[in-house]
Amino acid sequence: MDLSNGLVAVDWGTSNRRVFVLDPQGNILRSSEDDHGILNCSDFPAEVAGIRADSGGLPILMAGMVGSNRGWVEVPYVAAPATLATLAAGVKWVEPGVGIVPGVSYLEGTAADVMRGEEVQLVGALALGAIGDGLVAHPGTHGKWVEIVDSSILRFRSVMTGDIFAALKAKSILSDLLAHPAGTGEAFIAGVDHALENPDLTAELFSTRARVLLGAAPAEDASSYISGLLIGSEVRTGLGRVRADNVPLIGETVLTERFAIALARAGRTTTIVDGDTAFIAGIRAIAGAAA
Amino acid sequence: MDLSNGLVAVDWGTSNRRVFVLDPQGNILRSSEDDHGILNCSDFPAEVAGIRADSGGLPILMAGMVGSNRGWVEVPYVAAPATLATLAAGVKWVEPGVGIVPGVSYLEGTAADVMRGEEVQLVGALALGAIGDGLVAHPGTHGKWVEIVDSSILRFRSVMTGDIFAALKAKSILSDLLAHPAGTGEAFIAGVDHALENPDLTAELFSTRARVLLGAAPAEDASSYISGLLIGSEVRTGLGRVRADNVPLIGETVLTERFAIALARAGRTTTIVDGDTAFIAGIRAIAGAAA
Repeated sequence: MDLSNGLVAVDWGTSNRRVFVLDPQGNILRSSEDDHGILNCSDFPAEVAGIRADSGGLPILMAGMVGSNRGWVEVPYVAAPATLATLAAGVKWVEPGVGIVPGVSYLEGTAADVMRGEEVQLVGALALGAIGDGLVAHPGTHGKWVEIVDSSILRFRSVMTGDIFAALKAKSILSDLLAHPAGTGEAFIAGVDHALENPDLTAELFSTRARVLLGAAPAEDASSYISGLLIGSEVRTGLGRVRADNVPLIGETVLTERFAIALARAGRTTTIVDGDTAFIAGIRAIAGAAA
Repeated sequence: MDLSNGLVAVDWGTSNRRVFVLDPQGNILRSSEDDHGILNCSDFPAEVAGIRADSGGLPILMAGMVGSNRGWVEVPYVAAPATLATLAAGVKWVEPGVGIVPGVSYLEGTAADVMRGEEVQLVGALALGAIGDGLVAHPGTHGKWVEIVDSSILRFRSVMTGDIFAALKAKSILSDLLAHPAGTGEAFIAGVDHALENPDLTAELFSTRARVLLGAAPAEDASSYISGLLIGSEVRTGLGRVRADNVPLIGETVLTERFAIALARAGRTTTIVDGDTAFIAGIRAIAGAAA
């Protein structure tokens, strides 16, 4: 892919879309974020033509749910172990100069998982030297815990933390309590600690409400405690049996900070990798390697 | 409470209401079920006056969420250990001949729980000799696992199985898959077995979707598998460290059958106790013991 005039990198997810217009050296000339996620987009060709016109006709490389069966064009998953080279080879060219990066699939016995978008940040963080071989966590609606071996995405596990929190908030007996903002203070840490030690999530969620009803805990702390319970459960599952003293966290600050606290409670150190920086580096690396 | 002319027993929950008109011997003269749960009811006095008129002026004893802070009149919880005598002493007389049974609370250290309605079925099952001391399970939206000691409700744990299933169905990445009916065949049993052995619920839920996306499992089995995962998680938590070879199940057939299968996978035998029969026996026992 010709990067001599620059490139547009698009992180096109389910709900949101981020566009980065990059110069030939990868500096951000312009960026934007809007709610034109794939579920809010009906005319992909027109949207992409608009982005291209705004950038002065630069090539565009996209990643995320735009390549899913609910997106613009379905791009087959690349099977793990996935590398920069196999991802670049799997790019689907929708039209000249407009490509979509494939997601990654993992299937071994009954273990199965998929990602779309995170693979770009992973190869970007590898290209930057921000991560190396080992366990990497990628917090999110469906957070990923990824084992990198020989600079390839060997296997990974997704955890529905953000999705379950939102579902409980939208429609459950916990809705009222979850209307309070979730902090990262003592109640959050208590939730994390409980979940790291006790695999009783579906019961402890109800206990949280019972403590409030019985005056044993303040209502305004319940949301923080539940956030801690869900994130602690994710950390317990994500760490699993993998040996990892330090866990790099890729993503947005608001989430990586919560996970850094939770991992510290589990006795791990963390390194924060900015998600946008990793995404841009990953798109440039894939574009450079793509035909 | 004077039962010489009969009694109306009302199981008034969040979404539904069941009314049983009983003769002096406890036989059902008439029963009805409707969706006038407390969330769909604005004029409790008029509703109750209607029930009373329909029954020819019999006394009424109610239980369930009608006595909660979102119901008609809030009736304070009776603290565990709770017995037939303490429940009867806690009945709140809203007007002459119209009473509401209290719920039960459990608070010990940070462990906290509440029930409203299940306590009636428990004392009813005890009165009938259908259960004795030991662990009893009460499947539901917020299923209860109750330790009965010396015929009293000593401690219990609620598990949000039904509520979480409904929340995931209403609003999550699993919504489409959960639109399929949940059966009790191989996929359900596989979910139960997985959850009995693995405390990774929030990740395994996502794996279920990934298997479908990757063609490793049929979409129409996912709902059954997820039901199995949630029920298996509940059984693992509910059994906890309590020793119980046989676990009586109180409730509706459609739920108790699923739990009987799951408990069998956990190596336990079960006894099914019909929820309505237990409720009517419990209301009559409490009415007989109440002032």
